[in-house]
Amino acid sequence: MHWNKKYSQLTQKMKSSMIMDLIEKTQGIPGFISFAGGSPSAETFPKKHLGQLFKQVIEEKGDDILQYGSSGGDKELKQAIIKEEGLSVGLDEMQICSGAANGIYNAMRTLIDPGDIIIVESPTFLGSLVTFEAAGAKILPVAMQADGMDLDQLNDLIRKHGSKKIKFIYTIPDFQNPTGLTMSLEKREELVEIALKNEIFILEDDPYSKLRLAGTPIDSIFEIAGKKYHSQMLVIAIRSFSKLLGPGLRIAYALADKKIINYMDSWLQKVNNTTERVSQQAVAAFLDKGLLSSHKMLITETYRPLLKQIITSLQAHMPYDIKWVNPQGGMFLWLELPEDLNTDELFDKAVEQKVAFLPGSKFYPTGYEKHNGLRLNFTFPTKEQIDEGIKRLSKAVKILMSSPNSGFHFLD
Amino acid sequence: MHWNKKYSQLTQKMKSSMIMDLIEKTQGIPGFISFAGGSPSAETFPKKHLGQLFKQVIEEKGDDILQYGSSGGDKELKQAIIKEEGLSVGLDEMQICSGAANGIYNAMRTLIDPGDIIIVESPTFLGSLVTFEAAGAKILPVAMQADGMDLDQLNDLIRKHGSKKIKFIYTIPDFQNPTGLTMSLEKREELVEIALKNEIFILEDDPYSKLRLAGTPIDSIFEIAGKKYHSQMLVIAIRSFSKLLGPGLRIAYALADKKIINYMDSWLQKVNNTTERVSQQAVAAFLDKGLLSSHKMLITETYRPLLKQIITSLQAHMPYDIKWVNPQGGMFLWLELPEDLNTDELFDKAVEQKVAFLPGSKFYPTGYEKHNGLRLNFTFPTKEQIDEGIKRLSKAVKILMSSPNSGFHFLD
Repeated sequence: MHWNKKYSQLTQKMKSSMIMDLIEKTQGIPGFISFAGGSPSAETFPKKHLGQLFKQVIEEKGDDILQYGSSGGDKELKQAIIKEEGLSVGLDEMQICSGAANGIYNAMRTLIDPGDIIIVESPTFLGSLVTFEAAGAKILPVAMQADGMDLDQLNDLIRKHGSKKIKFIYTIPDFQNPTGLTMSLEKREELVEIALKNEIFILEDDPYSKLRLAGTPIDSIFEIAGKKYHSQMLVIAIRSFSKLLGPGLRIAYALADKKIINYMDSWLQKVNNTTERVSQQAVAAFLDKGLLSSHKMLITETYRPLLKQIITSLQAHMPYDIKWVNPQGGMFLWLELPEDLNTDELFDKAVEQKVAFLPGSKFYPTGYEKHNGLRLNFTFPTKEQIDEGIKRLSKAVKILMSSPNSGFHFLD
Repeated sequence: MHWNKKYSQLTQKMKSSMIMDLIEKTQGIPGFISFAGGSPSAETFPKKHLGQLFKQVIEEKGDDILQYGSSGGDKELKQAIIKEEGLSVGLDEMQICSGAANGIYNAMRTLIDPGDIIIVESPTFLGSLVTFEAAGAKILPVAMQADGMDLDQLNDLIRKHGSKKIKFIYTIPDFQNPTGLTMSLEKREELVEIALKNEIFILEDDPYSKLRLAGTPIDSIFEIAGKKYHSQMLVIAIRSFSKLLGPGLRIAYALADKKIINYMDSWLQKVNNTTERVSQQAVAAFLDKGLLSSHKMLITETYRPLLKQIITSLQAHMPYDIKWVNPQGGMFLWLELPEDLNTDELFDKAVEQKVAFLPGSKFYPTGYEKHNGLRLNFTFPTKEQIDEGIKRLSKAVKILMSSPNSGFHFLD
């Protein structure tokens, strides 16, 4: 029997994630503290409103919304989003998708044949990396700096590989996953200029910009391309309600040129036929009732003390050689250990201390891994868990640094 | 500017469906009757129960179910389905997917590289055809007979192309879309034997078997492969709640070998991350409350008179040369006109009479089109609309047959 040979080559190449399995196993351990996830705080979910609205839309519009819908999404939700966000786009320049993952997937299929090149920030969101790799794309990394991707490196890459094969640049400009860093306005403008000049699309993944906890908001790349460069078609923007209302609802949207949206709708039709309609309508009703702005305040008020706590705890407990940049929002903070230390090894020592994180090596394209970074989530654990967890993690770091071949030594 | 060259080759090859645009345009015309859709009757949607259950699951389990979930689906729903259907499968042999379309998509990606072969019934569901084509699969048709696909043709095709490149055989054994035909038990068994011998998977698409309106149920191919041939791994079965509770909920499931389900879960993760969780939990609660069996009776009681009506009306009004096989359930009936008549042309004449259907040519793989069939849906229009609509369609058929170059002449 040779059934195994029947699997597609791209399927067979997909990586299984041992670390994810390990993290799953830690979930049952009493007293275990995890900074590994990427989940919002369940405290922030507007359960009472949503329960009521789900019931209401089914009772009032069930005959319609339990039926098949348009692949591009329900117009009531599109209109509600346009009004809420003050967008100047048409209904045919927007797709409602099943979470940001689905929007990114549809955009990728619209543009990518196996062998095509995607440029990404390095490190970047591992979910997108595995998606791009599973489609046979060649992924080239550009290093992250404190103010966003290194644009000199980007120019070098484009010069080296030619702009024809490079289909898009994937960026998370606000509170990036995993680094928590935000791209400056200057860099956003320069990125648009580079992309325009070389005819390369920008895929702007924006799950976090609404989670600003300090500092001043910066225009999205989509807005900059449209308003300053009159080239809205350059950017495919993916925005999500997952971090605002709950990822279980799977409601996100894409903004792009209508030709691209039309192709993305064709892919959505093949992949899902229709995005789940009851949650589309419930979210539309939530927006129409004007509930979002006060809800956003509740979320930022919930997360601000958590961000403050993790910074305080890191400052109090981490050894001097551990570096990070304080994020101004989002859900993540990135720690950098000295270059000769490996956070894959740290992971085992941390689990012994009953604390978990995501090792940084997972956030680089295959072949470009670096091993001295790690990602911490600060929105899921409580304030008390954050302080205790960072204490434990600091202990694990010190143990790793004190191991005979580390080159570091601590006097305890 | 050469932005158009940036689209992937598979995207650029996707067909746009002019007929779908036309059908959409007819929806606003007062008094227009459509047999073109594939929608269940909104009358059958259990709105009262669902409204209540959606509210309840959010209020009781919102902290969990508004969060990210397992890519393979919620275990509560899997357990409820296993109990309801009396399945003897493990949780890791099942995927909850976002409608049957999503399950078919995930299965296809698990098995298909561009250039691989898929064998389909001819005619077959156009949604699956465009999905397979968009992934670069080569699609080979096997003719439909009154008792299911022509297995002699299937054997010939396997002999000609070799079994290595043929990844799976796609079949809708019960009340097939578009023909309404059902595969006999004997053919199901023979199909399993052929597939086993040649090491070719079977993708069994089963959206309709619960909609049996006459005759005796036949074991699914998944059951036959498991029970009689001890080769459950041969079949990937896709089953859906779309026709029972409403397609807007996007709840379906796949049954397969756990290795295949594992790969399908990996694809689902890339495509959607998680299937919408509130509707998963509401459907689980619907099943747990034991509401499905009486609800299925309500549906068959709703559809039985509609099927009877369309047959009566066809017998009363259609010209003698028009042939069909009475379906025993499902949602569709297939008309065959004499071979020299073209139902694409008939479509225009029908729209003039304010009635629409789906021309048969859409249901064949590219390059294998036949033009003398057409699909009628009998679950969406009312009894009165069915009778009036068939009268109109019969008139359009007669007008087409009477046109100078048709070779037919009627004395009106």
